[in-house]
Amino acid sequence: MKNLLGIDELAPDQITAILERAQYYAEALETGDWNRETLSGKIILNLFFENSTRTLTSFEMAAKKLGASVINWNMQTSSLAKGESFSDTIDTLDAMHPDAVVLRHSEYGAPLFVSKRMSCPVVNGGDSWREHPTQALLDALTMRQHFGKLEGLNVAIIGDIAHSRVAASNMILLTKMGANVRVIAPEMLMPEKFPAEGIQRFTDLIEGIKDCDAVMTIRLQRERMESVMINDATYYKDYGLTHEKLEAACCNGIVLDPGPFLRGVQISDNLADDHERFLYRKQVSNGIPTRMAVLEMVMGA
Amino acid sequence: MKNLLGIDELAPDQITAILERAQYYAEALETGDWNRETLSGKIILNLFFENSTRTLTSFEMAAKKLGASVINWNMQTSSLAKGESFSDTIDTLDAMHPDAVVLRHSEYGAPLFVSKRMSCPVVNGGDSWREHPTQALLDALTMRQHFGKLEGLNVAIIGDIAHSRVAASNMILLTKMGANVRVIAPEMLMPEKFPAEGIQRFTDLIEGIKDCDAVMTIRLQRERMESVMINDATYYKDYGLTHEKLEAACCNGIVLDPGPFLRGVQISDNLADDHERFLYRKQVSNGIPTRMAVLEMVMGA
Amino acid sequence: MKNLLGIDELAPDQITAILERAQYYAEALETGDWNRETLSGKIILNLFFENSTRTLTSFEMAAKKLGASVINWNMQTSSLAKGESFSDTIDTLDAMHPDAVVLRHSEYGAPLFVSKRMSCPVVNGGDSWREHPTQALLDALTMRQHFGKLEGLNVAIIGDIAHSRVAASNMILLTKMGANVRVIAPEMLMPEKFPAEGIQRFTDLIEGIKDCDAVMTIRLQRERMESVMINDATYYKDYGLTHEKLEAACCNGIVLDPGPFLRGVQISDNLADDHERFLYRKQVSNGIPTRMAVLEMVMGA
Repeated sequence: MKNLLGIDELAPDQITAILERAQYYAEALETGDWNRETLSGKIILNLFFENSTRTLTSFEMAAKKLGASVINWNMQTSSLAKGESFSDTIDTLDAMHPDAVVLRHSEYGAPLFVSKRMSCPVVNGGDSWREHPTQALLDALTMRQHFGKLEGLNVAIIGDIAHSRVAASNMILLTKMGANVRVIAPEMLMPEKFPAEGIQRFTDLIEGIKDCDAVMTIRLQRERMESVMINDATYYKDYGLTHEKLEAACCNGIVLDPGPFLRGVQISDNLADDHERFLYRKQVSNGIPTRMAVLEMVMGA
Repeated sequence: MKNLLGIDELAPDQITAILERAQYYAEALETGDWNRETLSGKIILNLFFENSTRTLTSFEMAAKKLGASVINWNMQTSSLAKGESFSDTIDTLDAMHPDAVVLRHSEYGAPLFVSKRMSCPVVNGGDSWREHPTQALLDALTMRQHFGKLEGLNVAIIGDIAHSRVAASNMILLTKMGANVRVIAPEMLMPEKFPAEGIQRFTDLIEGIKDCDAVMTIRLQRERMESVMINDATYYKDYGLTHEKLEAACCNGIVLDPGPFLRGVQISDNLADDHERFLYRKQVSNGIPTRMAVLEMVMGA
Repeated sequence: MKNLLGIDELAPDQITAILERAQYYAEALETGDWNRETLSGKIILNLFFENSTRTLTSFEMAAKKLGASVINWNMQTSSLAKGESFSDTIDTLDAMHPDAVVLRHSEYGAPLFVSKRMSCPVVNGGDSWREHPTQALLDALTMRQHFGKLEGLNVAIIGDIAHSRVAASNMILLTKMGANVRVIAPEMLMPEKFPAEGIQRFTDLIEGIKDCDAVMTIRLQRERMESVMINDATYYKDYGLTHEKLEAACCNGIVLDPGPFLRGVQISDNLADDHERFLYRKQVSNGIPTRMAVLEMVMGA
């Protein structure tokens, strides 16, 4: 595995291998016992063309815990502003021979394009509405820790499916691993087609979350909408997740969210504060060992 | 000592212990002989919600001189802009398990709030007008190096006392350590009450600095004023520190300033350039060993 | 050599010594065999008062490959905005005792000024239109690798000579090393005098590049022009470099560019993609070993 551009390109046994290595690091971070020199002397270049702190910080932590140096390239001060083309910017950075690149970009094709031009491994830190593979992997790690498996789980993803790369990567990963995936969204936020086979679609929340083992809420990606498609109050009434709605659907499942989550829009205050049920913090924590595993694997360490 | 949120919470012997360790590092930085691996493998997260370069760079230097890795979290690109609540941002960062956090925030209660939510040590890098404990500690280190003690010293703080966290932390620390503290300010920049007992107040500069061992000038914190309360020329005439005024008051004391200092407003050009008298550079230099001592102590290294 | 402020201050044998050390590192980066601890425990402060990513990233990579820590000082959040004078900002940073400073500044006199105030070595990362010494050194390294020498080479520099520090440093370096330098520019972009003796001036491109061993294109530095002096289409017609114009001049030379380069303005798409001829990527790659050599030499490692 030289790059990690999307879940789409991974075979189930590759996913399992990553999750097992991520689990190894999750436990090692608890005990404090792992090789802090694994990537010593290596330089990882974080190329974030979209704003991000959560994912950037998580990748930076993962890299540093393995002993790598990190350079955060700054889009705002780059030569793109002086009229340089994107491909020339990429070629320039490639010529500096970083040991790996983590890329975030708003364009669909960017990860593949960059990976073809660069001689070092490229990890997709999220592109457009297409894929956010390390997020889906850390979500899978969280569910696997909870249930001991992914196969056969019923997982519902609620929210702005049309604009969400997290939803897309999760649909692909979960389907590959034998889980049953449902998506729940108002029609206008439902994509025309799904990136995986066998996805069930629901517009009614209660119906959709019935018997689910895990429910994943997804933020309205307003920055990717051309106009206001739905207001917060209406959305909350129909699709905001609460203890009451979970009960009404007899759903005992855990709740996940990639963050940032908006209280009173996609999830109730009470549910967001119920850490037995809402595993957001566990997801964030799992981001570090997941990215350690991915960086180690693509860098062949 | 798990956190350093303010001088207010420290006992005199804790202050002495920090100053002695800071003095140890001040000397070690001269000889080049100290343990550069003390915080090796640790990750310190700088969480600056207010702009700062001086303090941020000083903390970053201190951390790196002890072998720690540093991640500078970027407020501008964070999820706060996507509507995430402050407490959820803090929880998210806590879930990444940094080894320590240095916090700067404009809100009074932020350091305590953050320290309660995070499982790692928190060092206050300045909050609101309340406290800037590492600044007061480095000021104390500078006076202690000069006089060999703090007890019994007469120290005057001139300027925008009402809006200055540096003045507040200094009043608390100096009073605790047995120094006599006076504050000198125009009425409109004088707070209603002081954060320590026994502070003497003066509106006349000459009167206030008489017989002082040390005089500390404080910038007009215009960014914290709701309107222009005093113009620079008037301020300089009445409260700008000059050799002439020091002489008129028979004051032989040293002069300190936390920086940035405005020449021709709080201090004359000549005095700012008189490095025998004006110990600003010594203060900045002392910032590094002071923060090394604090980081080492809160991180239990 | 304590500082590197400009090529102007270097003797030919110093230039040769830097280029030989840079060549050593260029080869070492290929084999992976060099001392990664050379600058271990040292802190390099990047003081960039002008936006830059290419040069900043290159210096950061060079520093980290030698084991140094890097602090990127942030102009936008600094105390300059609070009214601090430039010299007081520099004194403040000096008092923190970094082990070296890399400076980029828009003012002509900044590198000398800063080097006089700071006790650590200062490397000029580009100032005004005066000098960009590490760029000229990496250009020289690239030509030396290709031709085995600099002496006697015919080198033409095309473009915005009046505003280009890269052109200036190259004119000085190449002249010192015995190359013959020509500059080619429209009259309005031609400086009144040159920073080196014996430069030949041409306004006609074909005439100027005849028999050249190397041709260097320089971007229109629009950010340093007070008004639009020439439009892109006119410039391209007369001064844009293409295979056809090189052929018309019987010029077999290699083509260099400091980047960022604008396709269809200073160079044709086809020529920019002809990596046998256009050595831009080699230049970027050479930036790392060149800056490793410079940092090592000024820091006396």
